[in-house]
Amino acid sequence: MLSNYTIKPINKSLLESVQSAIDIKTKPPGSLGRIEDLALQMAGAQNSENPVCDPARLFIFAGDHGLTAEGVSAWPSEVTTQMVANFLKGGAAANVFARTNNVDITIVDAGIIGDLPDHQNLIKANIRKGTRNAMHEDALTADELEAALQFGAKVTSNAAQKGDKVILFGEMGIGNTSSATLLAHSIIGTDLETLTGPGAGLDEDGVNKKVEILKRVAARKSGKLEPTQALQAFGGLEIAMITGGIIGAAANKSVALIDGFIASSAALCAIKARPELAPYVVFSHRSEEPGHRAMTQAVDAVPLMDLNLRLGEGTGALLALPLLRNACAMLADMATFESAGVSDKEA
Amino acid sequence: MLSNYTIKPINKSLLESVQSAIDIKTKPPGSLGRIEDLALQMAGAQNSENPVCDPARLFIFAGDHGLTAEGVSAWPSEVTTQMVANFLKGGAAANVFARTNNVDITIVDAGIIGDLPDHQNLIKANIRKGTRNAMHEDALTADELEAALQFGAKVTSNAAQKGDKVILFGEMGIGNTSSATLLAHSIIGTDLETLTGPGAGLDEDGVNKKVEILKRVAARKSGKLEPTQALQAFGGLEIAMITGGIIGAAANKSVALIDGFIASSAALCAIKARPELAPYVVFSHRSEEPGHRAMTQAVDAVPLMDLNLRLGEGTGALLALPLLRNACAMLADMATFESAGVSDKEA
Repeated sequence: MLSNYTIKPINKSLLESVQSAIDIKTKPPGSLGRIEDLALQMAGAQNSENPVCDPARLFIFAGDHGLTAEGVSAWPSEVTTQMVANFLKGGAAANVFARTNNVDITIVDAGIIGDLPDHQNLIKANIRKGTRNAMHEDALTADELEAALQFGAKVTSNAAQKGDKVILFGEMGIGNTSSATLLAHSIIGTDLETLTGPGAGLDEDGVNKKVEILKRVAARKSGKLEPTQALQAFGGLEIAMITGGIIGAAANKSVALIDGFIASSAALCAIKARPELAPYVVFSHRSEEPGHRAMTQAVDAVPLMDLNLRLGEGTGALLALPLLRNACAMLADMATFESAGVSDKEA
Repeated sequence: MLSNYTIKPINKSLLESVQSAIDIKTKPPGSLGRIEDLALQMAGAQNSENPVCDPARLFIFAGDHGLTAEGVSAWPSEVTTQMVANFLKGGAAANVFARTNNVDITIVDAGIIGDLPDHQNLIKANIRKGTRNAMHEDALTADELEAALQFGAKVTSNAAQKGDKVILFGEMGIGNTSSATLLAHSIIGTDLETLTGPGAGLDEDGVNKKVEILKRVAARKSGKLEPTQALQAFGGLEIAMITGGIIGAAANKSVALIDGFIASSAALCAIKARPELAPYVVFSHRSEEPGHRAMTQAVDAVPLMDLNLRLGEGTGALLALPLLRNACAMLADMATFESAGVSDKEA
């Protein structure tokens, strides 16, 4: 996947040097837990003993899903476009958290059904308006999928080359928990009963109905699928662009900070297709959607936080970003035992 | 405990009104999980439909422990004073995170053994230098404990009255996981084998030895103790001041943001003595110290994060503060379905 993007292996001697720097800070070794791990990971990804978090940028990839015709969501498809308009006006949760955390947002119209006027914070991909209905045919053609992957990689690659050090991945798309669930099922093999959840708000009957629909969709294919096969079969355009976007970020030594269930399905595709990018990826939070655990376990990752979030938009990634900032600051600014004149542990 | 401080009950009709405001924001109801809970809790504590997080202030209460003479810590007592000097010079993890998160720090010398020159960020309590050795006698007299509780309540009360909206509670004190463990054991009743952990870095033999020492200390008392009895028996001065500090914060409608194991032992004392303050208390993170879970369960609380931290100083509270800021911003700034022109869920 995206063989035109090269991802460099992590420099192990740099990691050793950074670990030594962490261990002489004025604290019991290891006592900052995952903050220490984050500092080390960011140093590796950025190939720098002084990793930085800023500037950071959130991309929200938005797309519609033909499968919504089957009744997989509690919300009408028009909400995707309405929410993109809300992002552009600054009223959504992602906008509020981005302002609070000093992060710029770029919205990518990966393939929404509605039409929106041009806007300085909106990039339009113009591949197609919504995916095909995956109940009856592949959601995307091979050419459409390749175009979506390349588009995603290009936008994050450009951002990284202009200086963005951490790229946050969020999404909007009515019906996209169905695509994400089908991707996880077909790539990992976990059964659909375990993976399927309420998405943006189905009740128990709705979830049961969704499981039955997803089983019929999945039955169009047999056995486990490769990420490109799965993305073509089930979409969506926004998930394919995030997949490409993660590869584009990693290829340019930016850290990819993943939001929740949908963005994680893209990270699953990206890591399964390009395992060498795993050290560039940070999972921000454990989603309330039940299938999320299977996804992160499949790539040996443990999300940073668990706040019972199930909104998407990049909100969880925005909430986790301060942890990355503090990790970088720890490495850059903390005193050492020697510089502070503090006695070491007794032998 | 501290009957001179009155804590007002939470206004339930205000909570209902804030919940309604949260539910018309442009997101599926409940989809921001614990961020929504935090917004509601802060509104209740501050008795305001527009709770705020700033200014926020971290108090680090530092004290020494006579019980260190028995070998309960891997570090020498002199490190307490050295680390306070490090706080005043700005080199510790707490300083770095406080700068990153734009929080002021006040250090309280609750009873360290060493002498430090006066400093604008240092308040000296002058009650006594370190606690007595709890192996042989009560760590504090009744008068000393009362003085420590009142001192803690006074400093946070003053801070809240000068405008601090969230007060973060951190600590430093070689040997203080032993006090915290004994407090939990004597107040909750959980056995010492379950509660006792490595603190700032004991190995397995060290932990086993610590359990044996703490059992001998605990044997001086029988049955469950009230918080004031437990604090007098086991100290420490910094834990007593945090206990008072939480009461002082709540009495002035400031939110008390609790750090890890030690600060939580103080919160346990405060909530068991004054149950009406529970709605004012937020537990920031789950400590690596094994006894922490029993403490938070005893007050029906679930910490916000779990980052394998075991440093103290208020570091976990500082890392959690951005979540509170985002919760307030969500309530203040998010669009409603009506204002954003977004369709509601299908019936």
